[in-house]
Amino acid sequence: MDNRIIKERSSVSEAKEKFLGAITPLERTDMIAIDEGVGRVLATGILAPRNVPHYRRSAMDGYAVRSADILGASPTNPVMLQVCDEVDESTCSQVSTGACVPDAADAVLMEEDTICIGDMIEVRAQVHPGKNIGDIGEDVRQNEIIFYKGHLLRACDIAVLASLGIRKIKVYSRPLVAIIPTGNDLIPLEDSSEVPPPGKTLDINSLMIGLYSTQWSALPRYCAIVPEDRELIRKAITDNMDADLIVISGGTSVGERDYVPDVVASMGRKLVHGVGLSPGKPTALGTIGDIPVLCMPGYPAAGLVALFAFGKAAILKKGNIPQIPDITVKARLTGKINSREGYVSYARVILEGNTARPLMTAGAGILSSIAKSNGFVIIPENVEGYEEGNEVDVVLIE
Amino acid sequence: MDNRIIKERSSVSEAKEKFLGAITPLERTDMIAIDEGVGRVLATGILAPRNVPHYRRSAMDGYAVRSADILGASPTNPVMLQVCDEVDESTCSQVSTGACVPDAADAVLMEEDTICIGDMIEVRAQVHPGKNIGDIGEDVRQNEIIFYKGHLLRACDIAVLASLGIRKIKVYSRPLVAIIPTGNDLIPLEDSSEVPPPGKTLDINSLMIGLYSTQWSALPRYCAIVPEDRELIRKAITDNMDADLIVISGGTSVGERDYVPDVVASMGRKLVHGVGLSPGKPTALGTIGDIPVLCMPGYPAAGLVALFAFGKAAILKKGNIPQIPDITVKARLTGKINSREGYVSYARVILEGNTARPLMTAGAGILSSIAKSNGFVIIPENVEGYEEGNEVDVVLIE
Repeated sequence: MDNRIIKERSSVSEAKEKFLGAITPLERTDMIAIDEGVGRVLATGILAPRNVPHYRRSAMDGYAVRSADILGASPTNPVMLQVCDEVDESTCSQVSTGACVPDAADAVLMEEDTICIGDMIEVRAQVHPGKNIGDIGEDVRQNEIIFYKGHLLRACDIAVLASLGIRKIKVYSRPLVAIIPTGNDLIPLEDSSEVPPPGKTLDINSLMIGLYSTQWSALPRYCAIVPEDRELIRKAITDNMDADLIVISGGTSVGERDYVPDVVASMGRKLVHGVGLSPGKPTALGTIGDIPVLCMPGYPAAGLVALFAFGKAAILKKGNIPQIPDITVKARLTGKINSREGYVSYARVILEGNTARPLMTAGAGILSSIAKSNGFVIIPENVEGYEEGNEVDVVLIE
Repeated sequence: MDNRIIKERSSVSEAKEKFLGAITPLERTDMIAIDEGVGRVLATGILAPRNVPHYRRSAMDGYAVRSADILGASPTNPVMLQVCDEVDESTCSQVSTGACVPDAADAVLMEEDTICIGDMIEVRAQVHPGKNIGDIGEDVRQNEIIFYKGHLLRACDIAVLASLGIRKIKVYSRPLVAIIPTGNDLIPLEDSSEVPPPGKTLDINSLMIGLYSTQWSALPRYCAIVPEDRELIRKAITDNMDADLIVISGGTSVGERDYVPDVVASMGRKLVHGVGLSPGKPTALGTIGDIPVLCMPGYPAAGLVALFAFGKAAILKKGNIPQIPDITVKARLTGKINSREGYVSYARVILEGNTARPLMTAGAGILSSIAKSNGFVIIPENVEGYEEGNEVDVVLIE
């Protein structure tokens, strides 16, 4: 090994651009029932199959009238109308909100502007033609584009689809994310109600990657742990060439047996190995065929940062899912945060009211710092750090 | 009916305070597997059952050494060590990242500071005692509180629990939300592949409320449509007294047959009827026994606003779920937004890059405005509106 230190170091933005540039959004689609649609992305535009309302709809509880009949009506000059089933000269009919307004009426008079006297009403206000009537198609016109292709469906959108009589929709499939853990020291979670033997580590990264993939609308496939062996790593990748994204955890730092980025390079294209990301420097990014491959450091905290910095955007792009801004809160630092020059640093902080307390953590392996922190202060590469008392943006850890 | 206009009008903040004040968080719990835990809330604090690491862990690929043996080593003054299985005077043993450091060693020397010559290494740097060794319990100490009761679990927390050998956790149960649609004009969604007859409206609110309840970690129960009849409304409520929250949609404005708030008052306590919320004024809030009852306007857009303004906070409080800030983006208005004095107004806007275009919508019933808008500009009651060009906060509609 003559090149044991990762010499290359791409900036986070450059690495992300290269990686996302190599990702083609999925074209595969699913036909699903609308009530399964929250968080899914429309693969076709949706035209309104009908008008809403599809009849002249009363916007008020009151009386359907001919406005000409009550022209000039006021409290001092009331007009009497007969309440009937049909509307005609000097007759009106009672309508409730949402009801169909009879054809002969051209306005709805609010109940509040009337006094009921037997089967008559005393009308104490005039109305303009069209008043309190929702016209046919006023809300949605037939054949109007109601949602565009690529729209991320919210619960309220599902209600809109339901109201148009749409029951099934074509959405993009969820990307399949193959998760391959590597490492001779790893043991699977299921084998481990006991304390693992010294030198052995539970594979918690697979579960973490899988749960975040699910959260980001992908389908995780958990693969068996692969020992640090070129051929076995190659085989594990080959077995997952039906996936839409491959995430390999571990084996990215340049130790004697850290073969993953080399194997990716030999099977496809290594785009980046070594990123100005702290923690997370040994991240490697590549493609094999048209499958993007994210090689994450095995250390959980570094892996998590790499997953947030690259994995999330990759999954969203692959799944045609629009980027949603991170939830960010402003807070005042209760201590100094240092960062590494040339690195985008993810400093873990604990939010307490309007303050953010930096966690003093040494390395990338500090698991408890994830549990304790609720946010990251992300320090750009050209900033040296932040002083105590600085106001910073804290990105909540989702 | 001598009191047909809702005369009372609580402010949104006062109404919310009254309503939330009447809500007791659930004490019911579920025992679940950790991989089902994302988004759930811990009902007990969690103590670390063991140290992490539970052995002295190497933080580097390199050699376990006795630091005294290589004191003063440098490129110009290298020290030779024999590589063995055990560490003793002038011997070292190879360790990879995460491996167990032999007891006799007090430091790990980075591979990069050595040159391998047969079964010897030439050491070109000295190390301090303890260097590159993660001590037992350094990350997590046995019996340390790792998560407090009430913690909302994220995917990374599940990984932390897994690493501690925890497989099952006690979390608060999801609140059961009974959804009762009322209205003589309503027809159920399932009956309606055809266009509903004039005057009839599809019950889309139940689905909307149910999907948002699910999104906010509750369990929806969809109830049958209840006609506008006091006894039937009372019966529907009685049938759902096992629920944790009752949401009644429709029948809140003061028309002849809008009995819902009266029935709630007769069965329990009406806290608020009429809120300075636009759209959403006819909202009523109450309790029956210890069950909070949200009576939403039946008009979808008004119902949606009432659900966001009151329903979400109620569900989160009932479910012991910490409030998470809304996702908000700054944008410049491309048009004026008017608001109603004394009302908190939810103006729907379309975000286009850094601008927000107000939707010109007449009433609360305008369904398409929900589909088209991606955010609300929430105008406080003491603000008259915003001018074109104003920078405003847009709350994304989730």
